[in-house]
Amino acid sequence: MNDEFFLSKAIAMAAENVLAGGGPFGAIIVKDGEIIGMGANKVTPSSDPTAHAEIVAIRDACKNIGDFRLNGSVLYTSCEPCPMCLGAIYWAHIERIVYAANKNDAANAGFDDSFIYEQFALPSSQRSIKAVNLRMTDSCLPFETWKRLESKIEY
Amino acid sequence: MNDEFFLSKAIAMAAENVLAGGGPFGAIIVKDGEIIGMGANKVTPSSDPTAHAEIVAIRDACKNIGDFRLNGSVLYTSCEPCPMCLGAIYWAHIERIVYAANKNDAANAGFDDSFIYEQFALPSSQRSIKAVNLRMTDSCLPFETWKRLESKIEY
Repeated sequence: MNDEFFLSKAIAMAAENVLAGGGPFGAIIVKDGEIIGMGANKVTPSSDPTAHAEIVAIRDACKNIGDFRLNGSVLYTSCEPCPMCLGAIYWAHIERIVYAANKNDAANAGFDDSFIYEQFALPSSQRSIKAVNLRMTDSCLPFETWKRLESKIEY
Repeated sequence: MNDEFFLSKAIAMAAENVLAGGGPFGAIIVKDGEIIGMGANKVTPSSDPTAHAEIVAIRDACKNIGDFRLNGSVLYTSCEPCPMCLGAIYWAHIERIVYAANKNDAANAGFDDSFIYEQFALPSSQRSIKAVNLRMTDSCLPFETWKRLESKIEY
């Protein structure tokens, strides 16, 4: 079982997911040659804008192995990940990404995340969604509580 | 009820969440002056690397209002959002972000996402997680299926 095998499976999941009412995206996570997580885009059926295939697959894999880190695993995804998913991939410590369709193919089908990539490249003050840093006297209370806690699980 | 009111609540949630075994982050989503979603960081207790406070709050708000878009809503978060969460904020069509601690405060507490921001700024080929575009004969099958489907919900 090689890259083509797992990527074909992710593509088939993506196509099937369309007929099941979801978006045209599928993802599989493989570790040591075994599938440990799968996901298809459920944004509209779940009313969840974060339910991209990659996020669903990461959550599934982490649940299955009982760990919030997926070191040494490979993500096979039917389409190049968007910025949100790329961030999740980094937090999950995935080792490698293999994708089939690219962002241009996605844009041609009406799924264009180039706007979000452009937004990330701008300084915060120039982005379309305004972010205000409102300093409060207790802004750092959560971190102080965290630093004092001896039983914490760092990540 | 103003920005300070909702932000204080998000900060209090973040501090309480530490004592409940989660990370030091809390978020609240407000629309038309009412709280429609709340979330605290559950990465380690849920074994879910995507369970940042903002993502949990977005999922909660969308579930509560039955929509995958949160147009016209404001996100109050105890700390400046990471790239994954910023991507989710864009997909959710949130209108404004108000945060208390900034990324430097987070880094001082051991939560440093500057590495991920640096990775985003690099061309794909230079990132630490390798992404391979493996073209398959059916790479665009999911999108073709999508385009043909008349009953689809576009987003």
